[in-house]
Amino acid sequence: MRISGRKNNEARKVEIIPNYLLHAEGSCLISFGNTKVLCAATIEDRVPPFLKGSGRGWTTAEYSLLPRSTQTRTEREAIKGKQSGRTHEIQRLIGRSLRASLDLVALGERQIKIDCDVIQADGGTRTASICGACVAIGLAIKKVKIRQNPFRHLVGAISCGIVDGEIIVDLDYNEDSNAEIDANFVMIDSGELVEVQVTGENGFFKDHQLLEMVNYAREEINKIFELQKTILLK
Amino acid sequence: MRISGRKNNEARKVEIIPNYLLHAEGSCLISFGNTKVLCAATIEDRVPPFLKGSGRGWTTAEYSLLPRSTQTRTEREAIKGKQSGRTHEIQRLIGRSLRASLDLVALGERQIKIDCDVIQADGGTRTASICGACVAIGLAIKKVKIRQNPFRHLVGAISCGIVDGEIIVDLDYNEDSNAEIDANFVMIDSGELVEVQVTGENGFFKDHQLLEMVNYAREEINKIFELQKTILLK
Amino acid sequence: MRISGRKNNEARKVEIIPNYLLHAEGSCLISFGNTKVLCAATIEDRVPPFLKGSGRGWTTAEYSLLPRSTQTRTEREAIKGKQSGRTHEIQRLIGRSLRASLDLVALGERQIKIDCDVIQADGGTRTASICGACVAIGLAIKKVKIRQNPFRHLVGAISCGIVDGEIIVDLDYNEDSNAEIDANFVMIDSGELVEVQVTGENGFFKDHQLLEMVNYAREEINKIFELQKTILLK
Amino acid sequence: MRISGRKNNEARKVEIIPNYLLHAEGSCLISFGNTKVLCAATIEDRVPPFLKGSGRGWTTAEYSLLPRSTQTRTEREAIKGKQSGRTHEIQRLIGRSLRASLDLVALGERQIKIDCDVIQADGGTRTASICGACVAIGLAIKKVKIRQNPFRHLVGAISCGIVDGEIIVDLDYNEDSNAEIDANFVMIDSGELVEVQVTGENGFFKDHQLLEMVNYAREEINKIFELQKTILLK
Amino acid sequence: MRISGRKNNEARKVEIIPNYLLHAEGSCLISFGNTKVLCAATIEDRVPPFLKGSGRGWTTAEYSLLPRSTQTRTEREAIKGKQSGRTHEIQRLIGRSLRASLDLVALGERQIKIDCDVIQADGGTRTASICGACVAIGLAIKKVKIRQNPFRHLVGAISCGIVDGEIIVDLDYNEDSNAEIDANFVMIDSGELVEVQVTGENGFFKDHQLLEMVNYAREEINKIFELQKTILLK
Amino acid sequence: MRISGRKNNEARKVEIIPNYLLHAEGSCLISFGNTKVLCAATIEDRVPPFLKGSGRGWTTAEYSLLPRSTQTRTEREAIKGKQSGRTHEIQRLIGRSLRASLDLVALGERQIKIDCDVIQADGGTRTASICGACVAIGLAIKKVKIRQNPFRHLVGAISCGIVDGEIIVDLDYNEDSNAEIDANFVMIDSGELVEVQVTGENGFFKDHQLLEMVNYAREEINKIFELQKTILLK
Repeated sequence: MRISGRKNNEARKVEIIPNYLLHAEGSCLISFGNTKVLCAATIEDRVPPFLKGSGRGWTTAEYSLLPRSTQTRTEREAIKGKQSGRTHEIQRLIGRSLRASLDLVALGERQIKIDCDVIQADGGTRTASICGACVAIGLAIKKVKIRQNPFRHLVGAISCGIVDGEIIVDLDYNEDSNAEIDANFVMIDSGELVEVQVTGENGFFKDHQLLEMVNYAREEINKIFELQKTILLK
Repeated sequence: MRISGRKNNEARKVEIIPNYLLHAEGSCLISFGNTKVLCAATIEDRVPPFLKGSGRGWTTAEYSLLPRSTQTRTEREAIKGKQSGRTHEIQRLIGRSLRASLDLVALGERQIKIDCDVIQADGGTRTASICGACVAIGLAIKKVKIRQNPFRHLVGAISCGIVDGEIIVDLDYNEDSNAEIDANFVMIDSGELVEVQVTGENGFFKDHQLLEMVNYAREEINKIFELQKTILLK
Repeated sequence: MRISGRKNNEARKVEIIPNYLLHAEGSCLISFGNTKVLCAATIEDRVPPFLKGSGRGWTTAEYSLLPRSTQTRTEREAIKGKQSGRTHEIQRLIGRSLRASLDLVALGERQIKIDCDVIQADGGTRTASICGACVAIGLAIKKVKIRQNPFRHLVGAISCGIVDGEIIVDLDYNEDSNAEIDANFVMIDSGELVEVQVTGENGFFKDHQLLEMVNYAREEINKIFELQKTILLK
Repeated sequence: MRISGRKNNEARKVEIIPNYLLHAEGSCLISFGNTKVLCAATIEDRVPPFLKGSGRGWTTAEYSLLPRSTQTRTEREAIKGKQSGRTHEIQRLIGRSLRASLDLVALGERQIKIDCDVIQADGGTRTASICGACVAIGLAIKKVKIRQNPFRHLVGAISCGIVDGEIIVDLDYNEDSNAEIDANFVMIDSGELVEVQVTGENGFFKDHQLLEMVNYAREEINKIFELQKTILLK
Repeated sequence: MRISGRKNNEARKVEIIPNYLLHAEGSCLISFGNTKVLCAATIEDRVPPFLKGSGRGWTTAEYSLLPRSTQTRTEREAIKGKQSGRTHEIQRLIGRSLRASLDLVALGERQIKIDCDVIQADGGTRTASICGACVAIGLAIKKVKIRQNPFRHLVGAISCGIVDGEIIVDLDYNEDSNAEIDANFVMIDSGELVEVQVTGENGFFKDHQLLEMVNYAREEINKIFELQKTILLK
Repeated sequence: MRISGRKNNEARKVEIIPNYLLHAEGSCLISFGNTKVLCAATIEDRVPPFLKGSGRGWTTAEYSLLPRSTQTRTEREAIKGKQSGRTHEIQRLIGRSLRASLDLVALGERQIKIDCDVIQADGGTRTASICGACVAIGLAIKKVKIRQNPFRHLVGAISCGIVDGEIIVDLDYNEDSNAEIDANFVMIDSGELVEVQVTGENGFFKDHQLLEMVNYAREEINKIFELQKTILLK
């Protein structure tokens, strides 16, 4: 039994407040239980140098923990003068995942910059960021007129893990700290996989466990797709 | 007449949501109209090197604009690798102002770190930060047991300015962009001044205008003190 | 048919030159075809601050591309003043993977620093780094006397991918540039998984494809284990 | 009585050596007692990006303490790799103040860069920098032919403070270290104010004290204007 | 008698493996005994800003110690975020020396970037870098078609030193650590000098000793010219 | 004939103003014609980590060009965030040279930090820095009581060069810009050499030219020793 009373295959309550910010083209505040991430999408009429003249667009993400999103204060990266390895790893994952949601040719020579700022952290901030960023992009694209709609797929994500030999979904911070295996799954609304990252710092895993985690994740990500649709189809 | 319909001596609606964060010792979300700042206070059992063994405590502040708090996206300082001059100037002001709220000897060898993260910017972010930080510190001190209460004074702040020759209080972003004179006042609840910063980038000002701005500011800061008291005396 | 003439499930020729460096406690030059990585392991009698007094050891990795390891020159990170996001991501993967090879309690308060410097890059540098680092650690542990042998498992890794709908193993640079799906698998010699990273930048993948890639990878990693054993059992 | 024997409203002896440097368009060495600042003005035929095509010019300042300008050695910022918050705050103040001296439209698309390097520090380095920078700019403009003279106002500055309850002007380092209130005033030669910065780190101040400090400052700044005129009208 | 059994005027065995790298325009692995440096030359069709439109080319060098090239691990400069003073000094010497090998007008508006990465360090890495870089440049120029051959002179270098009052050539690490005088000489194949650097950290030297060191160096550099010619004339 | 009217073997007028700074333990302003360098010596009661417990002292130098010491403004290194390669090279030369002046065992566990800040640059700033730093150190040692006098030798330096085939001494900026060969010599008062650096960017040199330059340099350095003695023996 999980401390929170949740079943192994049960995610926390997910809530999305759309258009949370006045200035951003698209934005939302997404929460998975106590984890809260503010996601904003900015559409710019230019692309990085390697795409100039290609007719194609691009999407990248930036991720940050507010200093007191965490149990003990996390030092501000602007003061350390550089982003940590963990931040780099996470924002690259978010960027790759969201490129799956877009037809970059339809987007044209535009760049969508995604900002995921963690207001409160209780496990699963990177997967919450992906789910929220998808909504922010969807809202931004509705606001900015682009001839051909570049939005192609909903993208959802959730974490899984193995704790005391049991597979569970959507780990909170305490579960995550005690997990043998830590996994993140990203999917599009067809159910196909976009990204799989499974790490065994305190243990190893077998093929069938990998597949079971995929199944657990898919079931909960499908519910997130429903929530995303409700907001984006309004 | 101001575009917002406000009178010259009328601040925007100020709201404070206390204990906004789960993990911080003290926190609040403060808003002045569309300006929203998340303030968190962290109490640490150590002081900077220059105070070791002195028996005295310290307070410093860090300030940051979230990238899409602003009308056009502001580049993330963690990626530029350093804080801007404006950020340095503002966080030094916040830190100095809040030291006025505390009896640093009663605080003992502890440090209070204040984080002011601007969620949405529409003018007056530094003064909103000061008002919110005072509440965050007050809440933090109530939570952490310290033998002798180090909280000494409420600290409030507001901006003033001269636009088209008229003195106005609590400028929003558009007013601020057109101001001849830009001023920030910080006071304690006795009405005495802690900090005065008046800048004439597009004009000059006379002694009597300086005094009038002080008076405008004091009237509105007094209302902020009432709001702070309501929260801290609960 | 692959341009190189290799079968889909056929890795490039793997060679390991042990003790390549005079000064390092353990080292090797590993090559997968034209990909060459110089791996060195340094054993230090101290641990990072978070482990002081814990009685446990630690392992981290650093990864770098020599400027002319690549087809066009890659700018030196020491001159840019920071490591790229890609470098961060890779060296975190190497570090996590190699911790699986060690009993960190038996290691005691020592740190093994792994340096993976890519002499020549033709795809698969991160998995080659992991395979070579395992040998470097094994050699270092044989050289430095530690009461209880901390070496626990061989660790091997290989890349897979989907190109034109076909699953192939150990992609060279040209294959990698054209892949729909890019995957890296890390295993221990029992056949269990340590790390799975699958990315679909130009496409999506299904559960059965994930499993097939695991199977392809396991077959080739087993051959690498044989090579590692030959060297370490000498 | 002040240790130096000065009256409360008496500044130190101010001296300005014009054209101190061979290469700079304009320069001077200014001293307020033992405080010595080398001020140089460089006129460049280009403006920052945000002013390109605007027809307007710009002025910014940079400030630095030479390592042994101070009682104990101050670490060199080029070695720390960044400027301190104090440096940022001061150079922003100098830049804003000097923009008041110029008609930026008459200046045209040119930038005046001001360098204030403190050779010896004994309190009041930022106000000395402003007074000297005004002379350096005036001399530079006389040297470089600009169709319409952009020099508009003399700008002068001085510090005030409250020590043991008494208002004094032009604090030296020891007075500054013991001050309850620390203030800096910048004015143009009409007597109007350009910038007011008053800080109460060790105390609070009342409106009438603010005004008295303004009056003390104005009297001494007027004498500096006389000195500046003597040099610039030659 | 030297520990290695070498005579005072006897360099270590020098070996050069040309075309060591697949991708670089020119490259070699050069060894002086246990010192091994990988040298690569990259020819780019652009020059630094100060040469644009001049019709002239340029050459610069970058130098780096791999972390475990040294007896104890040298921290990676990409992680420290900057190159050390020693690295700066050495790469400037290499760049200056190699410019002597080239007719920069014949080179045209091209830049040759030299990368010298020390695989193993046992004294004399900077002089080995110069000797190897000359070969890498020669090979690169043979590969890239340039109308007029810009290769003008062979450039060779060797270290000398005074240990226990005796002049010796090509010091290894242990000799270097005990030297009173440490010297590096760079020459072209006519026997003329390009660069002389003599340093007396633990002693002083007389004019005649300077001359004797030049003579020792010239004799051994002549042998290196023979080796370079063998490779470049193939 | 040199433009300045100087003979080939004639240095510019050298002047030294001792004790130029109030706070530094030792200081001087040294000028070679229009080249002016402010040299300060700070004695600290601690040594770098590698000397702790050794009983020996240390000396290092830092060098900087003030932005308008040069004909066109040199960007401030504190703003670029790092020192240039040229700065590194020069301050390492100054530090090495001055260690020759000291008995580091007599100095005990103390560090002398030398700051050489170039007020005005007209060629020869590094050699002027060395000559001035020697005086600053001598004055500092006289001021700070150390049981056994660690001052061992006067150290002097001067530049030489070959311009249009002629050897000249103490090049000014214009001569330096046109030199085929650029050389710097450092000596102690016995006439022995401490450091020789000769560079042939636009030409090559022969052994006899090297010797002639040494002779030219020695003659002028001897005059500098006389000046240093006059000041230090007061």
